[in-house]
Amino acid sequence: MAGRKVLIIYAHQEPKSLNGSLKNVAVEELGKQGCSVTVSDLYAMQFEPRATRNDIVGCLHNSEEFNYGVEAREAYKRGDLSDDLIEEQKKVQEADLLIFQFPLYWFSMPAIMKGWMDRVLVEGFAHKFPDCYSSGLLKNKLALFSFTTGGSKEMYTKGGISGDIRYILWPMQHGIMHYCGVKVLAPHICFAPEYVSEENRKEMLLVWAQRLKTLWKEEPINCSPEWYFK
Amino acid sequence: MAGRKVLIIYAHQEPKSLNGSLKNVAVEELGKQGCSVTVSDLYAMQFEPRATRNDIVGCLHNSEEFNYGVEAREAYKRGDLSDDLIEEQKKVQEADLLIFQFPLYWFSMPAIMKGWMDRVLVEGFAHKFPDCYSSGLLKNKLALFSFTTGGSKEMYTKGGISGDIRYILWPMQHGIMHYCGVKVLAPHICFAPEYVSEENRKEMLLVWAQRLKTLWKEEPINCSPEWYFK
Ligand SMILES: Cc1cc2nc3c(=O)[nH]c(=O)nc-3n(C[C@H](O)[C@H](O)[C@H](O)COP(=O)(O)OP(=O)(O)OC[C@H]3O[C@@H](n4cnc5c(N)ncnc54)[C@H](O)[C@@H]3O)c2cc1C
Ligand SMILES: Cc1cc2nc3c(=O)[nH]c(=O)nc-3n(C[C@H](O)[C@H](O)[C@H](O)COP(=O)(O)OP(=O)(O)OC[C@H]3O[C@@H](n4cnc5c(N)ncnc54)[C@H](O)[C@@H]3O)c2cc1C
Ligand SMILES: [Zn+2]
Ligand SMILES: [Zn+2]
Repeated sequence: MAGRKVLIIYAHQEPKSLNGSLKNVAVEELGKQGCSVTVSDLYAMQFEPRATRNDIVGCLHNSEEFNYGVEAREAYKRGDLSDDLIEEQKKVQEADLLIFQFPLYWFSMPAIMKGWMDRVLVEGFAHKFPDCYSSGLLKNKLALFSFTTGGSKEMYTKGGISGDIRYILWPMQHGIMHYCGVKVLAPHICFAPEYVSEENRKEMLLVWAQRLKTLWKEEPINCSPEWYFK
Repeated sequence: MAGRKVLIIYAHQEPKSLNGSLKNVAVEELGKQGCSVTVSDLYAMQFEPRATRNDIVGCLHNSEEFNYGVEAREAYKRGDLSDDLIEEQKKVQEADLLIFQFPLYWFSMPAIMKGWMDRVLVEGFAHKFPDCYSSGLLKNKLALFSFTTGGSKEMYTKGGISGDIRYILWPMQHGIMHYCGVKVLAPHICFAPEYVSEENRKEMLLVWAQRLKTLWKEEPINCSPEWYFK
């Protein structure tokens, strides 16, 4: 929708990959709608995934014993987080919608994207107990997990060898986004792009573009255990 | 048990943390039993979590389009993975038991440990479709996830706000370890150590030491959907 701001957090090493193409489709389609789109291209940025003392500028709150969560929270209050984190937080703050675009790595996101979650969603910025879940600090924002797999759709069913794909979404959608108050749109999944025809892949990109056209009319999922495990 | 080899993959920034103490208890207790114990102290090693072209020494299999999974598999065959990966794979190969010791970050492991999974468990080394799950290449090994939380035990129950703690274990235990053929021992969880008394924490360390004394007699869990979602 014209005027809406979208942040795409994108984790693929190769621009020519299907993930790269899916990201491009989103940039193009949302751009056409008049949205302003920002991309955090994590590998290109060489984004740091490790949560360390380097994230805190200047002195520590407790230099006797390093507690990452406490130090990040205190540094956020003081405006003393490292520049890369301040930058990402600004992008998140401005965004109406976060799209996470990645290949599934070990039933989850690649480590570089997990590091984005670990480091950017600092206490005080994204949540502040008991301001979590429905009162998380990023409420009024939307998130959408868009990913590709190696496994087939059949493998990721309730009776399949890898279980329902929704089981995998629980930590990411509920544990991270919902915890921060973000409402979650239905995930977008391209199964096994490496093992289908060129034609099928083109179709996958079309389906994504198609969905994006009416994305702003979608209702968030009901992000509770029933959605995942019913 | 005397003679058994244990690899502890440990992810905490602070040696004085409860995770640090839990790791030390395991080193000590297993050492007393005559096990040989190796620790991969990921932050101290500044372990690289990002899956990139740097993991492949020399020329690429396909330099037109970088596919990490394919390149890592081919490099493994040729003996051309980067030294840090070869080193970790040697430790895994020799181990009878892998213990993962970490604080829960966003319903999962910290990014630095996720990177260990992404980069070390290469196709051809840890799995090779259809050699996965019960015929994964690391069969005859055991794994144990030992972690601490911020949330309380009550939050992590079926009716609790964060859902059953077992939901979180599905990607890690089933999606990673079981996929590679590794049998999984019951997880070891210390809930909310920051919010209990010093005395309670000492008790937590004792309980862990106690469990380790009879660990080799334990049966693996039945790592199927029933265990997680029943
Ligand atoms: C460490 C690791 C862990 C993994 N764990 C899991 C797991 O737990 N579960 C699981 O299911 N899978 C897993 N996988 C597999 C992984 O999810 C897939 O390899 C990945 O999702 C494929 O997406 P891609 O973008 O990399 O594909 P690509 O290989 O880039 O895409 C496939 C093809 O699409 C082509 N393409 C790109 N753009 C277009 C276009 N515009 N039109 C037509 N074709 C195009 C590309 O040229 C390519 O040939 C894992 C892989 C790794 C490396
Ligand atoms: C990015 C991020 C994401 C997070 N996500 C989640 C989440 O999704 N879910 C969740 O539940 N939690 C989450 N947390 C909280 C996190 O899991 C806890 O902070 C962590 O598990 C606590 O473990 P620790 O070892 O760091 O504790 P510490 O703070 O090191 O331990 C508590 C106390 O134990 C003391 N201690 C150490 N050794 C001993 C000893 N031998 N005897 C007695 N006392 C000792 C220490 O001195 C310290 O005071 C998150 C935290 C961060 C930073
Ligand atoms: Zn939810
Ligand atoms: Zn399993």
